[in-house]
Amino acid sequence: MNLILLDKEDFVGQHRVRLSGRRQEHIVNIQRATIGDELRVGKLNGLLGTGEIVRLDEDGLEIEIQLEQQPPTPLPITLLLALPRPKMLKRILQSVSSLGVKKIYLLNSYRVDKSYWNSPLLQPEKLTEQLMLGLEQSRDTVLPEINLCPRFKPFVEDELPEISRHTLSYVAHPGAETACPHSISQKVTLAIGPEGGFIPYEVTKLQNCGFLPIHLGERILRVETAVPVLLSRLTP
Amino acid sequence: MNLILLDKEDFVGQHRVRLSGRRQEHIVNIQRATIGDELRVGKLNGLLGTGEIVRLDEDGLEIEIQLEQQPPTPLPITLLLALPRPKMLKRILQSVSSLGVKKIYLLNSYRVDKSYWNSPLLQPEKLTEQLMLGLEQSRDTVLPEINLCPRFKPFVEDELPEISRHTLSYVAHPGAETACPHSISQKVTLAIGPEGGFIPYEVTKLQNCGFLPIHLGERILRVETAVPVLLSRLTP
Repeated sequence: MNLILLDKEDFVGQHRVRLSGRRQEHIVNIQRATIGDELRVGKLNGLLGTGEIVRLDEDGLEIEIQLEQQPPTPLPITLLLALPRPKMLKRILQSVSSLGVKKIYLLNSYRVDKSYWNSPLLQPEKLTEQLMLGLEQSRDTVLPEINLCPRFKPFVEDELPEISRHTLSYVAHPGAETACPHSISQKVTLAIGPEGGFIPYEVTKLQNCGFLPIHLGERILRVETAVPVLLSRLTP
Repeated sequence: MNLILLDKEDFVGQHRVRLSGRRQEHIVNIQRATIGDELRVGKLNGLLGTGEIVRLDEDGLEIEIQLEQQPPTPLPITLLLALPRPKMLKRILQSVSSLGVKKIYLLNSYRVDKSYWNSPLLQPEKLTEQLMLGLEQSRDTVLPEINLCPRFKPFVEDELPEISRHTLSYVAHPGAETACPHSISQKVTLAIGPEGGFIPYEVTKLQNCGFLPIHLGERILRVETAVPVLLSRLTP
């Protein structure tokens, strides 16, 4: 936790917040901070700044805050990701959020195990929890927007053209002819398949929607590794 | 497992191997392959090719193999990594191995918990196991070389100059003046600190050895995310 992320409900005055639970525990037991100490804070979807601990007792922790700094620039990449298995989804959401992606679509695909769609992790508050962990890690405040798309075909036909409009659109596909380009200055929509990849039908559907298949070389990477590799390569 | 990795001991003839245990289980239960089916195989530190299952009984599995393809080109990056906590080390070793790094130094640093050095995961055969998982994932055969460096100062003073000679040397350091460059065509030595980063003394020691501090933007990434991001950005 490199940033204490503050929500509306934390505020007890214009410049004062009261925290308890996980964040208090982290501040007191991990950061070992006490009254008078300064912390990095940020308001969810708002500014970053610093806070001074002014009260610490059994009711919780109070911090006087000063917010003046803009959050980091978002990554200009919209991510379409075939729904990974829950354990991996957690890690990927944290990593993607920490990298600055602000629009995520979790997509069905032939090789996505149907049971994944019943995971309790897909409840909105659980998804938000993982994304917030990424923000706390990377010192960002802007919560990514996340959408569940459990039906591939209607999503790609009816919604994707609008989502990917005015962007360069790529689908990561081992064996593609084109190598993943470097440092794209335009906005990008990037589709990443499940372990084992999108099936040819799905790749064709994405191509019909203007997506160019790109590869990362001869090596086949796990989705978890391919995601940061692709995002890193595509951003300026 | 996108590749069945074969060791010397597996060979029962010039073109025939016998497998049991984990690989047999994977082939039979996960890949659901049977007699006559073709598999991708590779000889550890040797060529890649295909194999046909010719026998399958309670003694194991026999495959007739043809090896003719070179393994993928290694990544021209030597990686110095402050020893991560064991659970993360496992994942990082797999990911680094799958990305094609062939020289890894696990390094002590002020912020590395001393207990990590006692982890059973640091036994050579356990490290090799994780690296092999990376090779099987990425369809590579060349086992990375891994070195343990539990003493920072003597390593940096006495061994690192020779290791990093004739390479561009970078140390990932949030807050550095220089941004991580793109697509370096020369050989690179890359040092990545622990969660929380190298301490200033350590950065100075690395700078004295010719390492340039580089950053990845305002965001602070977990080591696990920073590793593929840095490797991806630096390679051509």
